Amino acid sequence: MSADRPLKVALFGSGRIGQVHARNILANPGLELVAIADPIIESAQALAEGTGAVAVTTADEVFAIDGLDAVIIGSPTNTHVDLISRAAANGVAALCEKPIDLDLDRVLACRDSLRGSETPLMLGFNRRFDPNFSAVQSRVSTGEIGKLEQLTIISRDPAPAPAAYIANSGGIFRDQSIHDLDMARFFVPDIIEVSATGSNLFCDYIEEAGDFDSVVITLRGRDGEQITIINSRHSAFGHDQRLEAFGSEGMLTAGNLTPTSVRKFTAAGAEEADPYLNFFLERYAEAYRSELGSFEAAVRTGTACSPGFDDGLQALLLANAAEESARSGRVVKIGQA
Amino acid sequence: MSADRPLKVALFGSGRIGQVHARNILANPGLELVAIADPIIESAQALAEGTGAVAVTTADEVFAIDGLDAVIIGSPTNTHVDLISRAAANGVAALCEKPIDLDLDRVLACRDSLRGSETPLMLGFNRRFDPNFSAVQSRVSTGEIGKLEQLTIISRDPAPAPAAYIANSGGIFRDQSIHDLDMARFFVPDIIEVSATGSNLFCDYIEEAGDFDSVVITLRGRDGEQITIINSRHSAFGHDQRLEAFGSEGMLTAGNLTPTSVRKFTAAGAEEADPYLNFFLERYAEAYRSELGSFEAAVRTGTACSPGFDDGLQALLLANAAEESARSGRVVKIGQA
Amino acid sequence: MSADRPLKVALFGSGRIGQVHARNILANPGLELVAIADPIIESAQALAEGTGAVAVTTADEVFAIDGLDAVIIGSPTNTHVDLISRAAANGVAALCEKPIDLDLDRVLACRDSLRGSETPLMLGFNRRFDPNFSAVQSRVSTGEIGKLEQLTIISRDPAPAPAAYIANSGGIFRDQSIHDLDMARFFVPDIIEVSATGSNLFCDYIEEAGDFDSVVITLRGRDGEQITIINSRHSAFGHDQRLEAFGSEGMLTAGNLTPTSVRKFTAAGAEEADPYLNFFLERYAEAYRSELGSFEAAVRTGTACSPGFDDGLQALLLANAAEESARSGRVVKIGQA
Amino acid sequence: MSADRPLKVALFGSGRIGQVHARNILANPGLELVAIADPIIESAQALAEGTGAVAVTTADEVFAIDGLDAVIIGSPTNTHVDLISRAAANGVAALCEKPIDLDLDRVLACRDSLRGSETPLMLGFNRRFDPNFSAVQSRVSTGEIGKLEQLTIISRDPAPAPAAYIANSGGIFRDQSIHDLDMARFFVPDIIEVSATGSNLFCDYIEEAGDFDSVVITLRGRDGEQITIINSRHSAFGHDQRLEAFGSEGMLTAGNLTPTSVRKFTAAGAEEADPYLNFFLERYAEAYRSELGSFEAAVRTGTACSPGFDDGLQALLLANAAEESARSGRVVKIGQA
Repeated sequence: MSADRPLKVALFGSGRIGQVHARNILANPGLELVAIADPIIESAQALAEGTGAVAVTTADEVFAIDGLDAVIIGSPTNTHVDLISRAAANGVAALCEKPIDLDLDRVLACRDSLRGSETPLMLGFNRRFDPNFSAVQSRVSTGEIGKLEQLTIISRDPAPAPAAYIANSGGIFRDQSIHDLDMARFFVPDIIEVSATGSNLFCDYIEEAGDFDSVVITLRGRDGEQITIINSRHSAFGHDQRLEAFGSEGMLTAGNLTPTSVRKFTAAGAEEADPYLNFFLERYAEAYRSELGSFEAAVRTGTACSPGFDDGLQALLLANAAEESARSGRVVKIGQA
Repeated sequence: MSADRPLKVALFGSGRIGQVHARNILANPGLELVAIADPIIESAQALAEGTGAVAVTTADEVFAIDGLDAVIIGSPTNTHVDLISRAAANGVAALCEKPIDLDLDRVLACRDSLRGSETPLMLGFNRRFDPNFSAVQSRVSTGEIGKLEQLTIISRDPAPAPAAYIANSGGIFRDQSIHDLDMARFFVPDIIEVSATGSNLFCDYIEEAGDFDSVVITLRGRDGEQITIINSRHSAFGHDQRLEAFGSEGMLTAGNLTPTSVRKFTAAGAEEADPYLNFFLERYAEAYRSELGSFEAAVRTGTACSPGFDDGLQALLLANAAEESARSGRVVKIGQA
Repeated sequence: MSADRPLKVALFGSGRIGQVHARNILANPGLELVAIADPIIESAQALAEGTGAVAVTTADEVFAIDGLDAVIIGSPTNTHVDLISRAAANGVAALCEKPIDLDLDRVLACRDSLRGSETPLMLGFNRRFDPNFSAVQSRVSTGEIGKLEQLTIISRDPAPAPAAYIANSGGIFRDQSIHDLDMARFFVPDIIEVSATGSNLFCDYIEEAGDFDSVVITLRGRDGEQITIINSRHSAFGHDQRLEAFGSEGMLTAGNLTPTSVRKFTAAGAEEADPYLNFFLERYAEAYRSELGSFEAAVRTGTACSPGFDDGLQALLLANAAEESARSGRVVKIGQA
Repeated sequence: MSADRPLKVALFGSGRIGQVHARNILANPGLELVAIADPIIESAQALAEGTGAVAVTTADEVFAIDGLDAVIIGSPTNTHVDLISRAAANGVAALCEKPIDLDLDRVLACRDSLRGSETPLMLGFNRRFDPNFSAVQSRVSTGEIGKLEQLTIISRDPAPAPAAYIANSGGIFRDQSIHDLDMARFFVPDIIEVSATGSNLFCDYIEEAGDFDSVVITLRGRDGEQITIINSRHSAFGHDQRLEAFGSEGMLTAGNLTPTSVRKFTAAGAEEADPYLNFFLERYAEAYRSELGSFEAAVRTGTACSPGFDDGLQALLLANAAEESARSGRVVKIGQA
């Protein structure tokens, strides 16, 4: 594929995440936003205005676009499998937001349907592209801290999603922890055991939905590596997104981000930083841009996307195992799906 | 007991920890070191020299001292139960290093023998007296971060103890993690569930001894609080001793300590601090002093020591439960012992 | 001026700073880059390629453009006065890089020629738009630390400019310190005294040019505020750009920036951050974008630009005073120019 | 002198600083506190109680003590010259608090009277013994950051001394800045130029006494090194005591100290440390202990004390020069006194 013309890209979904992708596509000279699809046409139109993209309501209209190179799938989770399949069938590259689906059987069926396809497909585990986390992963992989032994991931959202969202989220393991489970696999691809515990500490409607608001997950890698994930659905001090990689020769950590480098000193306390960036749209703004760039490069060069479909499947298997462990009080072994 | 004369204190054990206690007793004007007991008389004599204390080999000699107020038990673990019992029988206050014993039955028998005794007895969980951890605990208990929801304790030794020590240590859970299990109880006294996993990542002789070199423990408190303990028998960057208390209104953390506030800036990196204090003698120097002061105050005022015998028992129960969980792959419920 | 069409902007200069402005104009949907002027036409053409802008060699061609709204002047210093004057004469708004000119008489003559002109003119003291420094200035101005008493500005370049640049730079006070003198005025507009000292510590060709490589400047504001500026032409650890505002009720500081939040811990040291961002193009990338946005807003709304021509003049007066003080060993009083 | 018996030490002065020294002498097994002298006998008696020292009112009584090894002079400044002279005449080592005297002529006359004396005499510039500052100085002197180019010392007291103290203090340069001037000489012994400016920003009674409450001093070393000292008589956030050594290969800094390593994170701000240690008794507790140990070692080994008499003289000369510069608006050259 020629590098001398922009890729024609269509976007599914014009909600919060769709808007992020739309802005990044427009700011990327290698991409041309040709269509925005949303059943709520007013929403698609509002986002498309002034961008040169057409607003449509159906996937049929999108895949009928002449010379379409790629789609970005930011529509609701239950549309992902269908859109992934149609993109592959049409030979159109796809970048799909996580998760592939909440139902393992549908994911496995989708995998079967894709077998043999060489159309690029990237899963939207955007945190792999966060400059901080990716720097740690890269430095660990070059042996800077020797052999990785323990990985600690702390990930807390600023506030619980609304009750309606929670009800259809698939539960905290499949909705929130899945990002951290993928991050675990970014460092330690082969996970063989999952143990988890869940609590209801502060949110009534999450408890009423039969879900947890706080969980701790312990994973073990093939070589005995120990990975701990600590999640909460709220955090008074903003989006808490950190990790620590502890190895035989040292440790690398990635911390939270403040909007400025300003520090305050008063009689009440010293070195006070600004409150942390509040949520993922700010915290991972750079990660979304970098993810899009990686997707573009894979499409242009025809190399395999990373993370890909299998990463989405494996993260779902780990989330399911975590849920099973938290319910049963037993370690769950991970086999091959 | 009068405050206008120093308390007469005898010390069992003249090894590494005995030396710490000896120095702190000598520097404390409220305490008088009258005897040091060690079967290796040369060791006791060397430590006693110039201090005014007599060097002896047996407990009989110690408990025969006229007007003895207190003993500090820093001798090997298998002497603890006997010395605790004899101190109580003689009406002599005791500060005993952890653990009470590695064998639960002996600990329970000791507890029965102490029933009714009002002689002060303190367990040497010195980390409760670390100024950093105790400040966090105190501030959490006054509600500064709302309701405590998740506690994370990271505790790594600089290097594994020698093979001979490991063989008699009772295993990592009872030897190393027990400090962190007590720290968990310092924040959340009622623990109802324990889950743990252990790995062998770097030390052959620990593996050969059937022990782990790296463990992760997850606890749950009566109100659903989640506590995570991450341990390793080594750490390239010194004694890694941190905790984070996450609550509904915010978070308080206590970090590692550097010998100075110096930072270095070069082309290779910025803001580099000194290597961390290497091991517990330096890291907890202030904690040992403060512990001794607390013990003295309890003896003088006749108030109950904290932490006391039951704290030693509970920590052992949790360590046993963690071991059981790591071996069985199941959550272990904590009942009443 | 209507907000519903982009402003037509021409750029003078296609060097390092011109390239920064070109990228920022292209990324700003409110601006249209219509021309790039540079006597070295190949340079202008290379930068213009694919942008839709025409490449020209002369100012005549630029000011002949129909409907031109604004020019950005990033050409050599000795062209600034002429281009500012022509922009004003043509009713075209201008954003001019500092300094206006190295010669005070030419600056004063330019000021006279502009008298009565209402065409927007902004001086490119980009650091006022750095999010960190501007946050401190804004918080100081709202009284967050009481009355400002002492301001400390540390500003070191990573490495000396080449000898040829130094020879025509006007000297360290007018070339490097001038940014910090403007920053001083951003916090304390009325400066009444200047004292300075210069040293030659590491760079032979700077000494041979009769210039200093390291200077310290002390300023006094009308209300007695004390401002200290510390400059060096080199810094082993990257662009060192910090300030501290000390007030009656506390202190606010703004520190250096690292590319990531990663920290490293080894036996050699703890908490080591990445090397700092190396030079102004990275360090002030956001400041240049924000400056351009402020300029656009001023042009659209017709409000006065800040910083403006007088800020450029005052900074030059302070730089001249600093040079005089460093040469004479006397405090120099600042009058009205 | 034999190391196998404690040195007999007498203390002049039982005020704030005398109490610090008394505690440190008592805690040092190599020193025996034999007498405390103070014209206010009740004060001497109160401090001596229970220590074994006798309380006296006159120097005659002190120097009549048989076998006296050393005196520590913590009495008012105007007694220093006389006590230093008498100690030397009696062959008794002395550790004298700064300054030697506020009057240069008396200091010079004292120097003449000491010529030929080999009795150890140490000046109490305690900050040289601060573990943080001394680590930076030591690392700079071994070339860790190449050639030292710029040194920045920020030193602010928490609150102004009372008016009565200020009136007899000799002014901020001789009373407060003198510590920082000595610190400058600790890094750069040969200072050749002094420039200073003073302001009255917040304290009326300091202004009425003809003194400044805020000063900035710029020094130049023989090799062109630039040293900046920033002083204030108050600081809302506690004792502000920092320095930065900038060299050709990097930078070393020493920062303020907090009582614990605890950090707080809330919606209002992140990473907030405890308020800094409030004043010199806490901030320099370790420095006073270390200073005493260095003095003891010098007395025992007969080596020259550092800092010594000449360091006291040089610091006074610099303070006088700073005052002259602040009054005259001119750089003051430093010759040989």
